[in-house]
Amino acid sequence: MTAPVKSGSYAPDRVEMIALRGLPMVHQGMDLARLIADGLEAAPLALQDDDIVVVAQKVVSKAEGRIVRLADVTPSEEAHRRGHETGKDPAVVQLILDESTEVLRQGEQVIIVEHRLGFVMANAGIDQSNAAPGHAILLPLDPDASALRLAAALGKRYGCRIGVIIIDSFGRAWRNGTVGHAIGVAGLQALLDLRQSPDLAGRLMQVTEVGLADEIAAGASALMGQGTEGKPVVIVRGFSGLRDEAGTVRSLLRPRARDLFR
Amino acid sequence: MTAPVKSGSYAPDRVEMIALRGLPMVHQGMDLARLIADGLEAAPLALQDDDIVVVAQKVVSKAEGRIVRLADVTPSEEAHRRGHETGKDPAVVQLILDESTEVLRQGEQVIIVEHRLGFVMANAGIDQSNAAPGHAILLPLDPDASALRLAAALGKRYGCRIGVIIIDSFGRAWRNGTVGHAIGVAGLQALLDLRQSPDLAGRLMQVTEVGLADEIAAGASALMGQGTEGKPVVIVRGFSGLRDEAGTVRSLLRPRARDLFR
Repeated sequence: MTAPVKSGSYAPDRVEMIALRGLPMVHQGMDLARLIADGLEAAPLALQDDDIVVVAQKVVSKAEGRIVRLADVTPSEEAHRRGHETGKDPAVVQLILDESTEVLRQGEQVIIVEHRLGFVMANAGIDQSNAAPGHAILLPLDPDASALRLAAALGKRYGCRIGVIIIDSFGRAWRNGTVGHAIGVAGLQALLDLRQSPDLAGRLMQVTEVGLADEIAAGASALMGQGTEGKPVVIVRGFSGLRDEAGTVRSLLRPRARDLFR
Repeated sequence: MTAPVKSGSYAPDRVEMIALRGLPMVHQGMDLARLIADGLEAAPLALQDDDIVVVAQKVVSKAEGRIVRLADVTPSEEAHRRGHETGKDPAVVQLILDESTEVLRQGEQVIIVEHRLGFVMANAGIDQSNAAPGHAILLPLDPDASALRLAAALGKRYGCRIGVIIIDSFGRAWRNGTVGHAIGVAGLQALLDLRQSPDLAGRLMQVTEVGLADEIAAGASALMGQGTEGKPVVIVRGFSGLRDEAGTVRSLLRPRARDLFR
């Protein structure tokens, strides 16, 4: 657990979010930090201390080659069964199972799993939209590490300390519509612990933890659009006091023992 | 269901979020639209077409007098039992039960319910922080209607058409930390239906609905802070093409039949 942040010290009065335009289609092996820097220069925009660079999972996965040809997948008996039950391609189901530690629920076209990274999410984050036909895109192997590499490379290039959040669109229980969620974090506190903050009446607060990286992920996601946009990078400027060299998306994962829906 | 929005038509390249400073403590009967307008003038800032005014639930509830003195509440047998089981004040439990249609789960200090408005949330959104001692604050009676009144009053004052989102901080299943969620919407589409949008490869998209009002709610929430801030209003500027006179938070409520966690 990181040290408590004073509530008043983090919430800025003004935040700007800027989507980069004109990034090329990303392919395996491309240097994503360099593509982002090129996009910044075209804007033109230079990163500053405490800027947060929000990046869509899909381009990170593509750059890292996390793409699987479905014809190369041999579905197990379980994958065939769940494919039949859900209407999903058994090869995709096999990938979902391979990426997961547990199946929580399944329904028409959806399998809710605990991803090996700890996220409870639909279909293990595996998506075929924006993949070449017959291919599927997996989440990055270690999104925190991917975020850290981007933060280091971009921070070096611009001589500043930035945060990076890698995001994916999650469906939610109980509510319609996907919302951007953090799946990798570097350089900033993902979860704010306000347990020592008094409220306006001077009492200790009932709400003690804020999922700030998820709030920023959601806001930035609204600028990315979905699929057709080609805007996988949003610069968020205005937050400060959130630096944390040990920042990680893992702080956003609710322990099973404290989860009423597991 | 609203008409499908072209994916490319909503996601802006630049969004500014501005928290209003210096709003007074809100009490029952105050004219919230006027307080917001005063805050805008102090900024100084004038609302424009398509601005989205994001307002914290707590000040809406206070202005509408949705405050209950706990001494006036007579807890039922069930409230006493659940209070004992959860460690919560039986009077608060009674208010939670009165505001809800169903209890889904309970744990230490928390009762997850379906609120009468349809939200699955902790403690029916009832909060004692920032309430006077011995009092609790309920959600507005009809947050969509509250949002519509604010949108009409502010739109008239500034001669423009705006959106309003009333938000509350929700805990989530599976993830730590609260995140701002829409509980009332007016003047804009809360849920975007992208079912007719092709992805970059020209295929129809798998992700077809975006919870845009929740994404905006989350982003704006990060500027409000929690409790100590006194910043219950954030202006979000940059979105366009989202106007919907019939906009409602109800579009964000997942029907029970399509919910795997009910």
